[in-house]
Amino acid sequence: MKRYTKKDFPLPKVRRFLEPGPVVLVSSSYMGERDVMTMGWHMMLDYTRVGCFIWDQNHSFELVRKSRQCVINLPTFDLIDAIIGVGNTHGPEVDKFAEFGLTAQEAAKVDAPLIAECYANFECKLVDTSLIKQYSLFVFDVVKAHVATSPKYPTTVHYRGDGVFMVSGRNASYRRRFKPVNL
Amino acid sequence: MKRYTKKDFPLPKVRRFLEPGPVVLVSSSYMGERDVMTMGWHMMLDYTRVGCFIWDQNHSFELVRKSRQCVINLPTFDLIDAIIGVGNTHGPEVDKFAEFGLTAQEAAKVDAPLIAECYANFECKLVDTSLIKQYSLFVFDVVKAHVATSPKYPTTVHYRGDGVFMVSGRNASYRRRFKPVNL
Repeated sequence: MKRYTKKDFPLPKVRRFLEPGPVVLVSSSYMGERDVMTMGWHMMLDYTRVGCFIWDQNHSFELVRKSRQCVINLPTFDLIDAIIGVGNTHGPEVDKFAEFGLTAQEAAKVDAPLIAECYANFECKLVDTSLIKQYSLFVFDVVKAHVATSPKYPTTVHYRGDGVFMVSGRNASYRRRFKPVNL
Repeated sequence: MKRYTKKDFPLPKVRRFLEPGPVVLVSSSYMGERDVMTMGWHMMLDYTRVGCFIWDQNHSFELVRKSRQCVINLPTFDLIDAIIGVGNTHGPEVDKFAEFGLTAQEAAKVDAPLIAECYANFECKLVDTSLIKQYSLFVFDVVKAHVATSPKYPTTVHYRGDGVFMVSGRNASYRRRFKPVNL
């Protein structure tokens, strides 16, 4: 599988990749155990803050909750087999990294692994656990971002339910039509 | 502008249109005042529940908070002028409906107006106000959905910040590769 050359990316601009609503792969690790899950329910809560729904039946739920960390990895369309496979496999019976050809790499600021084959990796720290019980909502601050140097925008997949994905299309700047204060 | 023929849509399937992460137009009304805002920060919190970030500097903030209702309208790419215009105009000085050629229609279960030109309209009731102060996060239940009868999937716009939009691309079903329990 393709490996991207990545570089540090400015944290206040991570919305460029997360705000459009792509399916992401969340990787985590705790006490020698690791997992990866497919996630479609997330949102920006501030420029470097992301809200993520992690169902309590996911194996990742306890790893993320206990380690208070994760990596949000951004897969592109060429990883569709891994995206679907991970989403349809329950840990911990299977090592999903090995099963779906994903390479775990060491992160800089968290213990959770980066997924090498993904276009971008966002290292996250859990900053609010108070919404987990009622809403399965984890509030993370992005503390380090690794983003591929090319292409400028990735071709991502966006889930509609019922097994249907939307694949991201073209990108266009309308910058000149924005008020400067809104950019 | 184009008007869609719409019909009632099953509430547990509204994720088909919201989970992919499109920019939406949120309409609201309170005590004879109405407003519409452009919103990119939202997520599914359950199959009929949506979390929405509404900044307290938005004119819509108080209308939604006080009326405890809104309509989440799904615009397609042909409405890009209105999407950008609404997002760069501050109420209440301007009636954004008139300014951007949007037609307000009566909703069935809320007092906020539907936007006729949008592909879909999701009538919402505010069910949790406790996260507004800390996170500007409004938790809504979708109580009625109106969706265009065709096309099956809309061409939506997804914001990346800095004036750049991603336009949704093709849709593909991978249903046969899912476990039935995950559909």
